[in-house]
Amino acid sequence: MSPTTPSVRPLVGIVMGSRSDWATLRRAAEVLAEFGVAHESQIVSAHRTPGKLADYAAAAADRGLRVIIAGAGGAAHLPGMMAAQTHLPVFGVPVESSMLRGVDSLLSIVQMPAGVPVGTLAIGPAGAVNAALLAVAVLALDDGALRERLLAYRRRQTERVLQDKPETEGSEWSDRPSDK
Amino acid sequence: MSPTTPSVRPLVGIVMGSRSDWATLRRAAEVLAEFGVAHESQIVSAHRTPGKLADYAAAAADRGLRVIIAGAGGAAHLPGMMAAQTHLPVFGVPVESSMLRGVDSLLSIVQMPAGVPVGTLAIGPAGAVNAALLAVAVLALDDGALRERLLAYRRRQTERVLQDKPETEGSEWSDRPSDK
Amino acid sequence: MSPTTPSVRPLVGIVMGSRSDWATLRRAAEVLAEFGVAHESQIVSAHRTPGKLADYAAAAADRGLRVIIAGAGGAAHLPGMMAAQTHLPVFGVPVESSMLRGVDSLLSIVQMPAGVPVGTLAIGPAGAVNAALLAVAVLALDDGALRERLLAYRRRQTERVLQDKPETEGSEWSDRPSDK
Amino acid sequence: MSPTTPSVRPLVGIVMGSRSDWATLRRAAEVLAEFGVAHESQIVSAHRTPGKLADYAAAAADRGLRVIIAGAGGAAHLPGMMAAQTHLPVFGVPVESSMLRGVDSLLSIVQMPAGVPVGTLAIGPAGAVNAALLAVAVLALDDGALRERLLAYRRRQTERVLQDKPETEGSEWSDRPSDK
Amino acid sequence: MSPTTPSVRPLVGIVMGSRSDWATLRRAAEVLAEFGVAHESQIVSAHRTPGKLADYAAAAADRGLRVIIAGAGGAAHLPGMMAAQTHLPVFGVPVESSMLRGVDSLLSIVQMPAGVPVGTLAIGPAGAVNAALLAVAVLALDDGALRERLLAYRRRQTERVLQDKPETEGSEWSDRPSDK
Amino acid sequence: MSPTTPSVRPLVGIVMGSRSDWATLRRAAEVLAEFGVAHESQIVSAHRTPGKLADYAAAAADRGLRVIIAGAGGAAHLPGMMAAQTHLPVFGVPVESSMLRGVDSLLSIVQMPAGVPVGTLAIGPAGAVNAALLAVAVLALDDGALRERLLAYRRRQTERVLQDKPETEGSEWSDRPSDK
Amino acid sequence: MSPTTPSVRPLVGIVMGSRSDWATLRRAAEVLAEFGVAHESQIVSAHRTPGKLADYAAAAADRGLRVIIAGAGGAAHLPGMMAAQTHLPVFGVPVESSMLRGVDSLLSIVQMPAGVPVGTLAIGPAGAVNAALLAVAVLALDDGALRERLLAYRRRQTERVLQDKPETEGSEWSDRPSDK
Amino acid sequence: MSPTTPSVRPLVGIVMGSRSDWATLRRAAEVLAEFGVAHESQIVSAHRTPGKLADYAAAAADRGLRVIIAGAGGAAHLPGMMAAQTHLPVFGVPVESSMLRGVDSLLSIVQMPAGVPVGTLAIGPAGAVNAALLAVAVLALDDGALRERLLAYRRRQTERVLQDKPETEGSEWSDRPSDK
Repeated sequence: MSPTTPSVRPLVGIVMGSRSDWATLRRAAEVLAEFGVAHESQIVSAHRTPGKLADYAAAAADRGLRVIIAGAGGAAHLPGMMAAQTHLPVFGVPVESSMLRGVDSLLSIVQMPAGVPVGTLAIGPAGAVNAALLAVAVLALDDGALRERLLAYRRRQTERVLQDKPETEGSEWSDRPSDK
Repeated sequence: MSPTTPSVRPLVGIVMGSRSDWATLRRAAEVLAEFGVAHESQIVSAHRTPGKLADYAAAAADRGLRVIIAGAGGAAHLPGMMAAQTHLPVFGVPVESSMLRGVDSLLSIVQMPAGVPVGTLAIGPAGAVNAALLAVAVLALDDGALRERLLAYRRRQTERVLQDKPETEGSEWSDRPSDK
Repeated sequence: MSPTTPSVRPLVGIVMGSRSDWATLRRAAEVLAEFGVAHESQIVSAHRTPGKLADYAAAAADRGLRVIIAGAGGAAHLPGMMAAQTHLPVFGVPVESSMLRGVDSLLSIVQMPAGVPVGTLAIGPAGAVNAALLAVAVLALDDGALRERLLAYRRRQTERVLQDKPETEGSEWSDRPSDK
Repeated sequence: MSPTTPSVRPLVGIVMGSRSDWATLRRAAEVLAEFGVAHESQIVSAHRTPGKLADYAAAAADRGLRVIIAGAGGAAHLPGMMAAQTHLPVFGVPVESSMLRGVDSLLSIVQMPAGVPVGTLAIGPAGAVNAALLAVAVLALDDGALRERLLAYRRRQTERVLQDKPETEGSEWSDRPSDK
Repeated sequence: MSPTTPSVRPLVGIVMGSRSDWATLRRAAEVLAEFGVAHESQIVSAHRTPGKLADYAAAAADRGLRVIIAGAGGAAHLPGMMAAQTHLPVFGVPVESSMLRGVDSLLSIVQMPAGVPVGTLAIGPAGAVNAALLAVAVLALDDGALRERLLAYRRRQTERVLQDKPETEGSEWSDRPSDK
Repeated sequence: MSPTTPSVRPLVGIVMGSRSDWATLRRAAEVLAEFGVAHESQIVSAHRTPGKLADYAAAAADRGLRVIIAGAGGAAHLPGMMAAQTHLPVFGVPVESSMLRGVDSLLSIVQMPAGVPVGTLAIGPAGAVNAALLAVAVLALDDGALRERLLAYRRRQTERVLQDKPETEGSEWSDRPSDK
Repeated sequence: MSPTTPSVRPLVGIVMGSRSDWATLRRAAEVLAEFGVAHESQIVSAHRTPGKLADYAAAAADRGLRVIIAGAGGAAHLPGMMAAQTHLPVFGVPVESSMLRGVDSLLSIVQMPAGVPVGTLAIGPAGAVNAALLAVAVLALDDGALRERLLAYRRRQTERVLQDKPETEGSEWSDRPSDK
Repeated sequence: MSPTTPSVRPLVGIVMGSRSDWATLRRAAEVLAEFGVAHESQIVSAHRTPGKLADYAAAAADRGLRVIIAGAGGAAHLPGMMAAQTHLPVFGVPVESSMLRGVDSLLSIVQMPAGVPVGTLAIGPAGAVNAALLAVAVLALDDGALRERLLAYRRRQTERVLQDKPETEGSEWSDRPSDK
């Protein structure tokens, strides 16, 4: 079974402008899979397949999608153009660009004019993870079981950090006050 | 009736770091009012009232809130710290800062680490409008009447732009090809 | 006669994302009028009227347009989305944005991915003037009379600067070497 | 036959400030070759060979050139100075600079004053590809066969993206909703 | 003896948002160890362990801490949220972030609103070293022996630089005036 | 009595690069005055009075100063050069510059090399207020009465924000859910 | 007598890209006048009068000029193109640009490639003053009387700052430690 | 013979803030050596050896130095503080910094206040080469032989670029118009 043809009707659509964006966006797919949220992943280029973009946006709600995650880099128009053509919530992931490290991607996505919102996450993989978590938070509003999984995920995350310690074992350095 | 004690249980909580942020965040409240979405607006400073912030976040879901809109400027920690203490979706509005025009606000809000998402909107009033529209989009997922209002809003917006013309009437300038 | 219904078939289409952009883009229309180049000016919002944008782009070549000048601000998707849907040359004008002074507009327009070019001009009115001059340069490739007008324009411009002097007359300051 | 002495009279002149810029600008030459557009490639340094620059610009139109593509990095003056000395359309390619990743190149090229336009493309190789495509779009205005090749190129590009899928095959990760 | 359970009551608390920040913050711990200043190092994440952060801040003064050094990257809220919950001096270290090289970290830490100060040091390891030196300078105000060690450290530093010479030995290059 | 000759031996020295910086730095002096902390304010220009700077730094500790607050704009060298010549803690205030809004001031102050720390506050007046509060926090480590005043200040600040409400009274806008 | 035709053979040539730059560059002329250094001021636009620029540069040394001060804004090519065509020392003044506050001007001037130097001063009027002072410093190397005037200027400057006091007289604020 | 003790009285002093800056500044020394200009190279840290800096600046003119080249990175105070303490022309080289790629170095050096100029060159090695060439240009004002060498250097540089060709030999790519 391919990720683009899930066995259950997808609730979240992950779209990205090019294949190379998958290295970033797969982090979103992984988080959704971890939460058992049905989703699909597709390449939709605002600039090279504007027709597919329009079709995807137009059909999204009827196909049962509830949230769209859109990632792109550089002059990143995919999230905004998707949001322009659907009333579903759209979350944008600025993909790191080769020259400007994603600053162009970020500004192209977040600075939308009043009227067409894109909820924008951090540049790069952290943003992809968080786009998925935000989608889960939205879906959990009406899905008690998913909410439990989200709360458990957050608790585990907290516990993991609570047990973290600075990585000092085995270093050559001693923390003991010296005699100097 | 004060805006902070709505007659119906609020679904959206608007929080902001200081009174001066209201000039920006009121745009979110206005949009929610236009859509008939019950909401509340409060000053919650991450730095000056961290206890209130923790209390607000802890009680938000139980009080019936479904979305939180958080706006702040400069080293803007309110949206991220709110998201850290609730599982509800949090949308962040970077308020324009006096020195750096909101670049600091934007980066402080959008660059959250993996694990705690804040869906970030544009700097300033446009971002506040869009945070409200994104909240409406989320609430509309399970509220058919609201969805209709959102679709109607989007249609009106499109029609308004379709009727717009460049503001050339009465100008001294002629568009006619000249004879030069 | 309105600027959007010129008496002759327009060769250049000027599109802009909102009415407020006209303050910038009118400079392009003025230059084209000065050169006697038939043109039209329209509001086409990538985000609020994506259907009109697609229609405009699809029909542009058949309607006789040869160059499109597109201006927008913030997350400025209009130039790139226009270029995505026509094979005509598209020149982009980054309109100054209220928060980031057009840096977001510039990066959103210029950083297009390989495959869909937008020839981008300077932020603001200077960019609008230059978009029109670049359109004239393109049209002049096959229009000897227009080329003469362009060469004359350039000569006048040079002569004007050659006659310019620093604005020192009437100032309280003397350029003469002092005796100190 | 060397690239600088094409067998047919070149229509597009590619100039660059130094040999190291060829790594970027060759992408423009490759695209023009793919389209069968006669072109030439030369090193012309605004700062080290200003005389050659003036000569090149002065002779360009008479030599039959119709478009000039100019690429440079850092304080990139070549595109603007070329545009200052010819009425042909000039497209600028900001070459990535070692320190500021092309931000200096971009601003030096795009922020031209009113009167002397440079149509600027993205920083780096994508910009070089797009400068060539923009030149093709200009030349195609009066060359039906070239226009067909451009339309075919665009169609192939679209088809290629339509067939793209996220690169998930063979990965260790399963998209199936988990049981957690 | 672990660095997090020093044998003497710590005077300086070093906190950081994640384990990966230790690569930067260990430089602070090393300097404090060199000066014989008792300290502790802990992972405290503003976003993932806000409760621990509140507890740490609330207990810090009573536990005998006199200075807190807080380091974090990206949307770096730890230093500001620590300062919000203690009256002890807090020094912030912006950790280099993967995308924006610490510009986001710096602005998130330094641009605190009036009322809650964070004394911010340079991005990265140099900032960690300097946070420790600034803590030493504060502690030395009432500790003559420590002040002597600080003065000696500064003198050694000066002497080391005074003896530094450009690294020219063994190079292929001759400084002698050539005969050209 | 002039601010530069306080009736009691000053504990905090406020220095600034030029008279125009006083508009910013006076905020530090006001806070110190509010706390009853003896202080002095002087113009010391790193670039125009380097000798005075060296003398000031050399004498600071012996004159009884315990903290130095240094503010400057543009290529702001005063804080760093002060820190280079005293072992007292130095807190830097980036003054807004006319062209770059204090980004140059901030980077010139905060990016000190390892070995010579400057605890840097926010750009502009907020930074000046916070430099004074940080100085108070340092002095309060060994002054119980001052610590009480600091704690009271913080409590008042919290209470003031807790009582703040969005400024909605008298506006034309109604928060009540509309009937639309 | 006009400033562009000084009574004595000018040693310093001040050139600027447009009349509006005079508001900035006149500060350079004023300083030179104060020092009694013969100079001239001219409009020379790299983009609109490249021929005049080439002529000016070619003749500069033979006309007796020893230093050239060149100011321009935006894509500021004048200083670099002047330096490309003369062996005289060229000092560049980035003029504040309307959109990007001179960041584009600065990068266009300072980021010259190896081989053609432009000694660049600060953005705006301060840079113009300093370009003149740097020219004076160069001329003073072989002019003892001028060196004396420069040393006197520096001494006066220092003395003026030494007498400066924070502007507190007449303010409502008291520096006296309060009784709170 | 070490580079720091030249056999002839040095005319140019190269100073840098730390040994690691030599990788950049040696390029200046190499150029001066190529021109046969006597020079010296020293480590002078504004922050760690302010006394040596003051001594160096005070003695520079009397020791026969005519130009000072100062390079530093980060909060780069060396060039400005040198210029503050000598009337000789000072040329500044922003050394690339590890975090911000020299943007901090550049702003710290170039944004000097009116009254104390530093002629600033490009970030990194190109800036070091150009600082030396600018020093040569200054010294050549009164040294005909050196002026000849500078003119020859410039001519050779021009000739080298005139002979440069894009590096296409041996590549797999054909520039010939294809048959597509």
